[in-house]
Amino acid sequence: MKDSLVERIFTGEPNAVARAISKVEDGSSEAADLMKQVFARTGRALIIGITGAPGAGKSSLVDKLAAFYRAKGERVGIIAVDPSSPFSGGAILGDRIRMQALSLDKGVFIRSMATRGNLGGLARASVEAVAILDAAGFDRVIVETVGVGQDEIEIAKTADVCVVVLVPGMGDDVQTLKAGIMEIGDVLVINKADRDGVLRTEKELEALFSLSVRADEWQPPIVKTVAIESKGIEELAAAIEKSREFQRNAPASHDRRKAIARWRILELLRERLVAQKLSGDSTAAKLEQLSAEVASKERDPYSAVEELLK
Amino acid sequence: MKDSLVERIFTGEPNAVARAISKVEDGSSEAADLMKQVFARTGRALIIGITGAPGAGKSSLVDKLAAFYRAKGERVGIIAVDPSSPFSGGAILGDRIRMQALSLDKGVFIRSMATRGNLGGLARASVEAVAILDAAGFDRVIVETVGVGQDEIEIAKTADVCVVVLVPGMGDDVQTLKAGIMEIGDVLVINKADRDGVLRTEKELEALFSLSVRADEWQPPIVKTVAIESKGIEELAAAIEKSREFQRNAPASHDRRKAIARWRILELLRERLVAQKLSGDSTAAKLEQLSAEVASKERDPYSAVEELLK
Repeated sequence: MKDSLVERIFTGEPNAVARAISKVEDGSSEAADLMKQVFARTGRALIIGITGAPGAGKSSLVDKLAAFYRAKGERVGIIAVDPSSPFSGGAILGDRIRMQALSLDKGVFIRSMATRGNLGGLARASVEAVAILDAAGFDRVIVETVGVGQDEIEIAKTADVCVVVLVPGMGDDVQTLKAGIMEIGDVLVINKADRDGVLRTEKELEALFSLSVRADEWQPPIVKTVAIESKGIEELAAAIEKSREFQRNAPASHDRRKAIARWRILELLRERLVAQKLSGDSTAAKLEQLSAEVASKERDPYSAVEELLK
Repeated sequence: MKDSLVERIFTGEPNAVARAISKVEDGSSEAADLMKQVFARTGRALIIGITGAPGAGKSSLVDKLAAFYRAKGERVGIIAVDPSSPFSGGAILGDRIRMQALSLDKGVFIRSMATRGNLGGLARASVEAVAILDAAGFDRVIVETVGVGQDEIEIAKTADVCVVVLVPGMGDDVQTLKAGIMEIGDVLVINKADRDGVLRTEKELEALFSLSVRADEWQPPIVKTVAIESKGIEELAAAIEKSREFQRNAPASHDRRKAIARWRILELLRERLVAQKLSGDSTAAKLEQLSAEVASKERDPYSAVEELLK
């Protein structure tokens, strides 16, 4: 049964892909065996991470990029990671509606992923979902992260090419985003480039990058787009391709792959260790009791953890 | 020596507070003992979490709110959590410059916190820094999160009152933010309220909240501000106070405190378990070797973790 699921994944069957992703989301016991087999078949897809501030138009950009790839006959997988709404489901519903046009196309697979419970694991599950799509023969896999926090940046970093989306004149906090960009952006997009302030944002980015040299010496290109009018999408696709080609040959990309591998191992290790520790009804009950004691200040969190570690 | 540091924290000495925060950031062995003593003295400060999209003007709002409290003679601690720029330090420098005026004031303590390394723990360390400021006698402790991802939301949730900052007309992704807001916002701010679209944003928020009833039945007030002109700050402070009063008496706030306690325990447990597992040079070397094997696809991440768990 398990093997047949894997075989069905390898033929690209959407139901099998969806079921496999649910398994890694749930962290089910079959997931480990499944992923071992899946992992061996990965490495063929181009994995594109898309991140940026809320309001930057990432969703439209992903839609248009996917449509561009489809027009060239490529199969496209999309993982929309939404860590910010664990209970509401609002954004996920929005994604589904938004992508309805695309999702009628059998060459496109779309999945939204959100946090489940408080044991973490979303970042790990998203990266595994990407691997499943890769193994299922999707040519392009786009990972769109909705938030812009630490987890989201980690997820975007695991892509082959990470695209950071900005808009002109976003205000002071853009400085903050920019600081993060230097680290993760392989391609920079100024979306909504029909707005005022494009030139200023472009100059600022150029100035920023002139100050720093990346370890791999890649100079991230700046692409201007108006996603809702499908402007600049071809240029974006070309910049993504160029970045991938560069990295294939750069000596520093071994370090990058190793850093990604280390991150994956640590994410998984963390989850496993906590799950191991908290397995069993008595430990769950103990956690509840200790939480109540810490809440009422009868106990501090450190001694609660020591109690659990005993 | 350790006790004298704790005593100096309790008298509110800035150097002692700064040193203690460094210890919890580093996860040093003394941190546990320190935090056990600090924890017992917490619970007096009003802890205000401020979160929202980049570009919403959170920094200005924090500055003005802090100045408002100072004018009333209250001591203010500020923790600016910046998980998005682990290496650059750009945002941190920006914060420091920004807050220079405030930081000359001895009644204000400001600290920026960023990710260190890949073992996590920023969320845990930020919450502990808040506890240190609380124990040091600061009347108001403001936690500003720069990112808007899962970690940032977790941090904001641990505050007594969580303020979510929006701006008018932020585009489609506001829907996403809104979904998260229902869960965490005790007070909603529409900043830059001199811009077009304020009324629409306000109506949208009202419509959103009319659909949902929180477990504690609190109806989050919407406050309009123009932070850079100091407009609406008094109203914001009043809304924060009202939310705190409500929660003090609401039966559901016990559940809230317990959920925060559970989160703190799990964060700490996760960090401890990984640190325990990876302690020792041979394990560190093994992690490096396994990372290289996963990077070159000789091995999958799951079997790497099984190897480490042996």
